[in-house]
Amino acid sequence: MTKVTAQMSVSLDGFYAGPRHDGDGDWLQSAESAKFFRVTRWVINAMAWRERQGFAGGEQDVNSDIMAETFEAAGAYVMGRRMADGGEVPWGDEPPFRAPVFVVTHRPRPILARQGGTSFTYVTDGIHSAVEQAKAAAGGKNVAVAGGGTLLRQVLAAGLLDELELHIVPVVLGTGMRLLDADLGLGDKEGIELIPTRVVHTPDVTHVRYSVDGRAPLLLDDRGSGA
Amino acid sequence: MTKVTAQMSVSLDGFYAGPRHDGDGDWLQSAESAKFFRVTRWVINAMAWRERQGFAGGEQDVNSDIMAETFEAAGAYVMGRRMADGGEVPWGDEPPFRAPVFVVTHRPRPILARQGGTSFTYVTDGIHSAVEQAKAAAGGKNVAVAGGGTLLRQVLAAGLLDELELHIVPVVLGTGMRLLDADLGLGDKEGIELIPTRVVHTPDVTHVRYSVDGRAPLLLDDRGSGA
Repeated sequence: MTKVTAQMSVSLDGFYAGPRHDGDGDWLQSAESAKFFRVTRWVINAMAWRERQGFAGGEQDVNSDIMAETFEAAGAYVMGRRMADGGEVPWGDEPPFRAPVFVVTHRPRPILARQGGTSFTYVTDGIHSAVEQAKAAAGGKNVAVAGGGTLLRQVLAAGLLDELELHIVPVVLGTGMRLLDADLGLGDKEGIELIPTRVVHTPDVTHVRYSVDGRAPLLLDDRGSGA
Repeated sequence: MTKVTAQMSVSLDGFYAGPRHDGDGDWLQSAESAKFFRVTRWVINAMAWRERQGFAGGEQDVNSDIMAETFEAAGAYVMGRRMADGGEVPWGDEPPFRAPVFVVTHRPRPILARQGGTSFTYVTDGIHSAVEQAKAAAGGKNVAVAGGGTLLRQVLAAGLLDELELHIVPVVLGTGMRLLDADLGLGDKEGIELIPTRVVHTPDVTHVRYSVDGRAPLLLDDRGSGA
């Protein structure tokens, strides 16, 4: 059955990048990129990621296996507009997705077909529509929410996410863009419950996969005194 | 050798409690307590914690083993003023620490001796002094930073923390008091690096222990293209 999945590299304090670089100047010299580079360093070192980019070398280790598995499981992607725009040039003629990508945007645009199986379809009627179109295109594989963080939160808040894998990188960054931030629309005494289904531990990163159980009220207990 | 350690139960988005309840009304009916109760539910269910509270029952499982190990490793505690004040009545005549506790406060107060080996010493000259006094009192065991989150951040920011264990509870809470928040005083391109040394995975909580390596600059890489 097609699941809607997402995976993201985050620091121990939950950041996937530094503070958003909106102004002039070189993104590569920004705090956004410095912190993004730190949390994705394990990805850059993974052979399975490097192969998709056409780069030689890399480590053939458990981190690479997880990256390979992540690519293999996805039959289609859903992506935010900022990520799609930012990647368009660096991903080049043969982007690493090798599957249809559905970009959530307000701006209509013709389908962009690339080599190697990747195409970008621009969806202007919202995340539910983008997820539905991706499911129909996934060929029985999963729909992966590629990012960025804002789209991932929207998909989680809308109850559309079945599985979340966090790659928790052992660094505290202090400031930046948080994956799980306050705009989830949760009530004061409400949470989104998950079930951890797999933990893989390496020196560089801890991979924790969750099945998303959904919103639930937070209940008080008697702190053990009455049991 | 005496290490300075800390451990805290946090939600997947990093909260150890809901938004601070400062106003009138019943703390037990607040969002602060609802979220605190959720992330500490595994503790309440652990037999090793219940024994220290004088409560019967509980689960004798790996979570309880971790709680027992945590109690056993601590020869002295450092604690924030708000936590000490909040616990004074509920902890009663025989608090669960069974070791000297050094409370960081601005308000001088005589030592409070309790039954079972617990004492509270009120330290008015800062966290370095409190940690030093706790080390001297720890009898070769570790100094545990008991909390709350504000004190833990101060100890981490000051470079005094050797080991951090997070008990990551599989729930997203959206708002509240974050353990690792922006007041760590990190620069734009600076992080605190850690090394994960142990991961224990249970359905209720993922225990990740880190050795704290310290502050380090964040370096750009070539994104793999030049290797």
